[in-house]
Formats: sequence, C-alpha cells, structure tokens
Amino acid sequence: MTRKELIEQIKKKQSFLCVGLDSDLEKIPQHLLKFEDPILEFNKRIIDATKDYCVAYKPNIAFYESMGEQGWRTLKATLDYIPKDIFTIADAKRGDIGNTANMYAKTFFDTYNFDSVTIAPYMGEDSVTPFLLHQNKWGIVLGLTSNKGAFDFQFSELKSGELLYEKVLKTTASWGTDENLMFVVGATKAESLGSIRKIIPSHFLLVPGVGAQGGSLAEVCKYGLTADCGLLVNSSRGILYAGNDLHFAEASTKVAKEIQQEMSDLLQMI
Amino acid sequence: MTRKELIEQIKKKQSFLCVGLDSDLEKIPQHLLKFEDPILEFNKRIIDATKDYCVAYKPNIAFYESMGEQGWRTLKATLDYIPKDIFTIADAKRGDIGNTANMYAKTFFDTYNFDSVTIAPYMGEDSVTPFLLHQNKWGIVLGLTSNKGAFDFQFSELKSGELLYEKVLKTTASWGTDENLMFVVGATKAESLGSIRKIIPSHFLLVPGVGAQGGSLAEVCKYGLTADCGLLVNSSRGILYAGNDLHFAEASTKVAKEIQQEMSDLLQMI
Repeated sequence: MTRKELIEQIKKKQSFLCVGLDSDLEKIPQHLLKFEDPILEFNKRIIDATKDYCVAYKPNIAFYESMGEQGWRTLKATLDYIPKDIFTIADAKRGDIGNTANMYAKTFFDTYNFDSVTIAPYMGEDSVTPFLLHQNKWGIVLGLTSNKGAFDFQFSELKSGELLYEKVLKTTASWGTDENLMFVVGATKAESLGSIRKIIPSHFLLVPGVGAQGGSLAEVCKYGLTADCGLLVNSSRGILYAGNDLHFAEASTKVAKEIQQEMSDLLQMI
Repeated sequence: MTRKELIEQIKKKQSFLCVGLDSDLEKIPQHLLKFEDPILEFNKRIIDATKDYCVAYKPNIAFYESMGEQGWRTLKATLDYIPKDIFTIADAKRGDIGNTANMYAKTFFDTYNFDSVTIAPYMGEDSVTPFLLHQNKWGIVLGLTSNKGAFDFQFSELKSGELLYEKVLKTTASWGTDENLMFVVGATKAESLGSIRKIIPSHFLLVPGVGAQGGSLAEVCKYGLTADCGLLVNSSRGILYAGNDLHFAEASTKVAKEIQQEMSDLLQMI
C-alpha cells in the first residue's frame, strides 16, 4: 500500500486506528475452542467487528509462532481474510545482517504479503535497508518503545547531547523516505513526540501503548498529528478482549467505534 | 543444557565450534532438490558430517521462516535430528515487551526445544528477562555484532564515556548470570574483546564472523578465551557450502575438522 492510499483510507474512515491481533488461546472466549482453528475463528470475528473503524491490522507474530506450524497457517488465513484496502503490519521486530534481513523481508512481504514489518535498529543500516527495497512495502523501525525497558538504553545520553533514540530516528530516516519507512513511538512517551516531530516531521508513526499500557490518545495527537495525520495508533487487548462471552464481537465493535469517533474529532484539528 | 555440561562437551571434543545452519535452497547441491524436503536432507548430511567436530548448531530462523509452514516443519525435524549432547541456538534475534517475549521464549524453548535464543537488546530489561527464567535454557544477547551496521549505533559514545555496546553488556549482565546468559560478539571486532572481557569476564560469547565475514580465530582466542573456554565460534557458509557436488558432505567434514584441530591447539593455551 502506498502512502497516498493509506492517507485516503484514513480520510475516508475518519480513523487512524490499528487493531493489534495479539490473539491468545488462553484469552479468547471459551465457546470458540470447539472450532478446528479457534484463533482463526476469533480473528475473523474481530475483523468483521472492527473493519469499518480501523485502517490497519497488526498481528503480533510471537503469538502465531508459539503455536508452531499451525500458527503460521492461522496467520496466513488471517491475512487472506483482511480486506485489501486495510494496511497490514507484521509485528515481528526483526533485525539481522543483510543476507538474513533479506530472508525476513521475503518471508513477510512475499510469503505472507504483509504491507509492512516492524524492525529492531540495533544492528544498523544493513539490517534495515533490505526491508526498504520492496515496492509499496514498508519498514517500521523501533524508535522509542512503550515499555519500561525503554529507559534502559533508548534514553541513553550521547556525548553529542542527543539521546540514543533521537540518533536512531535521525540516522535511520536518512536510509529511506517517508514513503517506505515509519517509526514505532510508544503512546506512553507522548511528551517526547514534540521533539520527535522536529526530527521526523512527516513520517508516519506507529503508536502502541494506548489502552492496556495507559497512553492517552489526545496527548499523542496533540504532539504527533501532522497535516497528513501521520499516525497509526494501535490498540490490542482493549479491543480484542473487550468482551468474553457469546457477544464478544459486539463488545469489540463498541470499543473500536468509540476510539474511531474520538479519532474523527481529533482529525478536525488538522 | 547447563554451563557445566557445555564445558564438558568442549573439553571432550576439543572444540568450541558452532555450525550455523543457514541452509538456503538456492545454495545447496542440486542433486538434493529431488527429495521431498531438500533442506532437511541437506541439514541431516551436514549434521552427520560435522557432529564429531562441533559442540553447537545454530539454525538461522530467517531461512526457515521464509519457507512458510514447510520451513517450520523442516526446522523441527532438524532439531530432532541433532544429537542431544550438542547445544542448540535459535538465531532469531527476538526482542519485544514482556508478554510477547514470553511467547517467543515459549516458541523456542517449549515448542522447538532449543537450548538458547539470540535476543536484540534495544527494548531493555522486560524484553530480555523472560528468556532467563527457563531452567537450563539460555538467552544470548546481541552485544557487538560482526556487520558493517554495528558502527551505526553500537559504537555510539555515551556522555559517561562508555560506548553503547559496553553499556548493553554491563547492564544486561546484571539481569542474569553466566549460567543463563551469553553475548554475541562479532569476530570482526576481535580487538574489542580485551575490553569486553573486563566487563564480562566469565560469560560465554557466541562469536560469528569467522570465515565468510573475515574474522580470525586466533585473534578471537587471544583476547576472548577464558579458563572455561568461554567461546562458541560460529561458522556457517564456510562449512555448509565447502562443496557443491555429490561429495559436499566430505568437503564440510574437512573444513569442520580443520577448524576443530586449530581449536584444539588454541585450547592448550588455557
């Protein structure tokens, strides 16, 4: 999907919501366990319940990988079920030397046909650029993450005066464009978004951490919204597990719709 | 596998060689393509050819993942074929928030029964510690990698005077022990091993970059060898693709045996 197409979807749906498919056999409603592939059934119902209110889906690859071969079958079937006008993100956080990074890009872009993959930056340029060479595909590089561990290294102050994550954003941005590169910036670090927008004014940001992790949508928009929106805000557990009975899908619709309506209001700011 | 058992294997075989199973359909001998699972056939022959000369195997997960479901079947069958007294490393370079890191640990330690997984440190403590809670299993954290991109961030000079990779080694070491934590240090950075050994004197290091990437085994040992050996030196392409005809396995044996003999000599230093 191109940047232009993504922006069109955001305007049309008045939403920049990404639904994280962190689908967990231990958390889905019990009545789905009778199906041959309970996670696929769950995902299909969540997709049906939320597709009018979101512009992206983000399967968390760990949850599928942990089920072995069956998990990869479920992932493929889930991808096939997602409407073609919705952006897809493989939340895989891969990062390895060039020939291996090429293999990972092949996996997610060719074998599974995702629009984008999340990437860890620690190994530098040759671990990132192989993801930027595929037409209409995206690399989404970790900038500043939403977890407690972000403080261990990402906020390290460099001799130059920069923080490490600022150097990561600036350096990585020089390897691609705002048409093939996005960054992960956690919603729990909304106060950093102002200075981040000075470094990368036009790149889309994938923002996890709203909902279960405690980030505020209004704060994220205050500092992060651009003329093209420039945000994909993710919610996983808050939507997936909004309900846990026969009517769980309606509960997910309700939460997704509420977020979309808040987003629609916030989009009036631009 | 425990540290004690690993050290026993190293002494017994007079080797600290790890064979990287970066098995690639485009590079294996053509005559294997007639088999139903050519990569598995290749891996079995490489394992038979090298198992007397190495103490670890390291499948590069990207190469299996890129083949979809079939790749994961091949990975499982390869793991089952590796003799139980040989240490196994899932070279996956995973790293994500706590609940996701738990899923990755479950994948590699439970579903696939690996002894260890490589981990990217960028997301900090809660992305690493879930790998350290499994009995006799190991997390192997990226310290200083062997690729060109290592210079982009890992060598960043911090305000404290440390380099980023030194902070990563020191901080990460405090989250575990030398019985559940190893570090990746590239052979192409052998001159850094002296200062690295001051930070982590007793941890095992997984050292890629000897062979195709140009690192020297003697240099690595000069600076990195400890009283318990403390090294697992990896070779992938140099062994896997030593030959490319009907006698490829013999060619792999020859290269692995040569490395083992050099290692045996180097082990006399301790």
